[in-house]
Amino acid sequence: MANPNLPYLRPTTELWEPLRSSSPRPSTALGLLFSSQNGTHVINKLTNFLRTQYLQYGFREVLTPTIYKKSLWEISGHWQNYKDDMYEVTGRGATGESGGEIGEEESYGLKPMNCPGHCLLFKSQNHSYRELPVRYADFSPLHRNEVSGSLTGLTRVRRFHQDDGHIFCRPQQIKGEIASALGFVEMAMNTFGLGPYRLVLSTRPESDYIGTLDMWDNAESQLREALDSTGQEWTLNEGDGAFYGPKIDIQQRDSAGKYHQLSTIQLDMNLPQRFGLEYQVAEGEEDYNPETPGVATPILIHRAIFGSLERFLALLIEQHGGHWPFWLSPRQAIILTVNQDEAVLRHAEEAAAKFSGFRLLANDGTSKPPRPLSSVDPTFLVDLDTSAQTLGKKIQRAKQMKYNLIFILGPRDVADGGISVDITGQLQSKTDIGGQELQKLVQSQLGESALKNPKAVKLKLEEVHPLLVEFEKNFL
Amino acid sequence: MANPNLPYLRPTTELWEPLRSSSPRPSTALGLLFSSQNGTHVINKLTNFLRTQYLQYGFREVLTPTIYKKSLWEISGHWQNYKDDMYEVTGRGATGESGGEIGEEESYGLKPMNCPGHCLLFKSQNHSYRELPVRYADFSPLHRNEVSGSLTGLTRVRRFHQDDGHIFCRPQQIKGEIASALGFVEMAMNTFGLGPYRLVLSTRPESDYIGTLDMWDNAESQLREALDSTGQEWTLNEGDGAFYGPKIDIQQRDSAGKYHQLSTIQLDMNLPQRFGLEYQVAEGEEDYNPETPGVATPILIHRAIFGSLERFLALLIEQHGGHWPFWLSPRQAIILTVNQDEAVLRHAEEAAAKFSGFRLLANDGTSKPPRPLSSVDPTFLVDLDTSAQTLGKKIQRAKQMKYNLIFILGPRDVADGGISVDITGQLQSKTDIGGQELQKLVQSQLGESALKNPKAVKLKLEEVHPLLVEFEKNFL
Repeated sequence: MANPNLPYLRPTTELWEPLRSSSPRPSTALGLLFSSQNGTHVINKLTNFLRTQYLQYGFREVLTPTIYKKSLWEISGHWQNYKDDMYEVTGRGATGESGGEIGEEESYGLKPMNCPGHCLLFKSQNHSYRELPVRYADFSPLHRNEVSGSLTGLTRVRRFHQDDGHIFCRPQQIKGEIASALGFVEMAMNTFGLGPYRLVLSTRPESDYIGTLDMWDNAESQLREALDSTGQEWTLNEGDGAFYGPKIDIQQRDSAGKYHQLSTIQLDMNLPQRFGLEYQVAEGEEDYNPETPGVATPILIHRAIFGSLERFLALLIEQHGGHWPFWLSPRQAIILTVNQDEAVLRHAEEAAAKFSGFRLLANDGTSKPPRPLSSVDPTFLVDLDTSAQTLGKKIQRAKQMKYNLIFILGPRDVADGGISVDITGQLQSKTDIGGQELQKLVQSQLGESALKNPKAVKLKLEEVHPLLVEFEKNFL
Repeated sequence: MANPNLPYLRPTTELWEPLRSSSPRPSTALGLLFSSQNGTHVINKLTNFLRTQYLQYGFREVLTPTIYKKSLWEISGHWQNYKDDMYEVTGRGATGESGGEIGEEESYGLKPMNCPGHCLLFKSQNHSYRELPVRYADFSPLHRNEVSGSLTGLTRVRRFHQDDGHIFCRPQQIKGEIASALGFVEMAMNTFGLGPYRLVLSTRPESDYIGTLDMWDNAESQLREALDSTGQEWTLNEGDGAFYGPKIDIQQRDSAGKYHQLSTIQLDMNLPQRFGLEYQVAEGEEDYNPETPGVATPILIHRAIFGSLERFLALLIEQHGGHWPFWLSPRQAIILTVNQDEAVLRHAEEAAAKFSGFRLLANDGTSKPPRPLSSVDPTFLVDLDTSAQTLGKKIQRAKQMKYNLIFILGPRDVADGGISVDITGQLQSKTDIGGQELQKLVQSQLGESALKNPKAVKLKLEEVHPLLVEFEKNFL
């Protein structure tokens, strides 16, 4: 059951819209969430962060179906063991050629996980031992038919997204893959300022496991070596592995001291057998098996770094208490005008476009479309408040909305091409522990005085965009 | 029925994996596609292109559920009129509090379009006339329960993705929004080298339409003005609008002369009424209605630029005939080693990491995780062939695989820090009409000689990454 005392267990109105609804809910069920533009911005930042690292870590993203025929879930074993937790789908499935009958009804399962789809994809191609490991990544929406009582805000929902990855590798590659995954976890947690976390190895159960003792011993010793190589402490949960393989859980401590399961790295000797997966292997190789000449069964590693993106977001919300670092913030900057003089308004619009990294102003009145922005043109979220309210009111509102940077623009700035900025909001966001990196960057870019008097830092208009790029580049 | 003569109607093995399967298909149905890493790379490029422009065009992306209760589809009218084209889903829906019964079965529809979800999202907040237009974007997977006979490769499938957008605006804002959407279409088609396309306006049907004559006249005249302002010709399809509003179709001609529906811009006066959407409006405003004092009903504009991403990809595949421009290509560059000397291999790995924009080599052997790559660090797909085959064989294979840039690295390059590149593949990809921009860029970056002898252009190692950034920045 939900613990109602933890604040992040409920979606915040900032990021996830609580739909205005009578009871019972008219059109959506509990656990099927809407994300506003702000929540989607952060979720997109999380997926983009991973996509960027994936290239370097050898993961390649794939797109796989959302629904699969019942027969797939029978092969994977989900239909027998997991049916109650899956949504069932009915619709057309036939190829239109079975007995002249078009549009035959078919029973599907809405996928609760990506592994069976990835097994199909792996099976659809021939693989040589030379090209292993094959590493698939997938951000598909997943559905689990959870009972209502188990749902908690963002941390347990019925539809969610995982930063799912599946590695198909040779038995002797386990250690390298695990070490790389553990390194990825460390890098990610450092970047998001999360931690400390603990590493737990769960090993072979006493009985009812599949595979040989040799396979288990080999796999477990590679996991131990990979864990040792991190230099971090880890604990052993003897006999607590799944029947199909050992696993490593990474558990993250929240500010209340409670541990949450985020990353997971799980070995699987079952699904590759069920799906009849294989790769070609030459005689003389370590994994050559004379009983199956020329082919061998790959090891499957399930791994997720963030785990559920929704749950990871919940931890981040709690961690930052509304003070998002600039690079993640859905409210990166706002420009407030001191008055409504035409020159000031025009200048403010130009500044907003320039800071954002846009090629043109939205309201330039020409019918010619702008040159498009490319993927290497950095863009930022810069809002504009040109309303007739007093500057005091505007500042108060911008602070309530926790903008990282509050720019103030008046007639004097129009004259000298400058602008004044309050960086307090950004200084309150602590990504790195203690905010040292942030302080160092501010000092080097804006000078010592900016730290002493962060409420009114003077800048040239041209200096702003490069400053924002520096924040982004350094995850601050 | 499918026209089997058009090549792009079938997924290519390059981008979409034809799953190896006996007949009948074991686990997926026709029209539910798997995309390999290469296809996913291009699809991600398409969505990222749009996301980048969205900021500038005032669209903000949202995340909405995949399944909605039957009652939502009754409000929207889909259950009455569209039920046969929807997949039905059953699972838990109750809040766990109705009569002590937990886990009550509920009937859902798997969404075929995003509009009802966006209406709910709009309705969940209060809106002042000052903050309109509100523009939502959504890339959710959509499912349509099509009959098997109507399915054609990538152009008509059962699961697809739309670059869906919904604009909620005041009646007097229609023209501006339409003009902006038409400008977006022009910019996008120019960038992707597609065209020519035709613009077709469909107006009020003779009978059975909703809304007043005044509303229709006002809307249609704004659409006409927006079309006129493009400076392009457009044609009229009188009386062919939907019962709920007029629309503009953008039809793209393929190389065989056949027109395909891609972008669409559609006015909707029906859904806002069905969902009871409203915004606050002050007395004295043009859209103030004394019959509903203080509130007014927004106009809904459905709009998609690419339409179905899968169909758009099909057109691009045909358009480029395998010669993707660098910025879209899943095979941007490959480095071939002349021999297998250790110094050459090490140099080649360093070059691959440097060209890719990575922070470290994948196999550097240290346990310390690398600094993460940020969103403003440009990265590229650079493969490496260090196999023992002859250079001739490697070049032949790289050409067959249509790499844009083929780098060749030998002992002499190790000595002088240079590398030789064959840019023929890139010159064969024509994004801009006639490839003039590409030629201009190559000339300015690599010199006149590179165009005359594109097979062996000499470069310093340090010059490569900046060159790739230039290709990316200029959509070449």
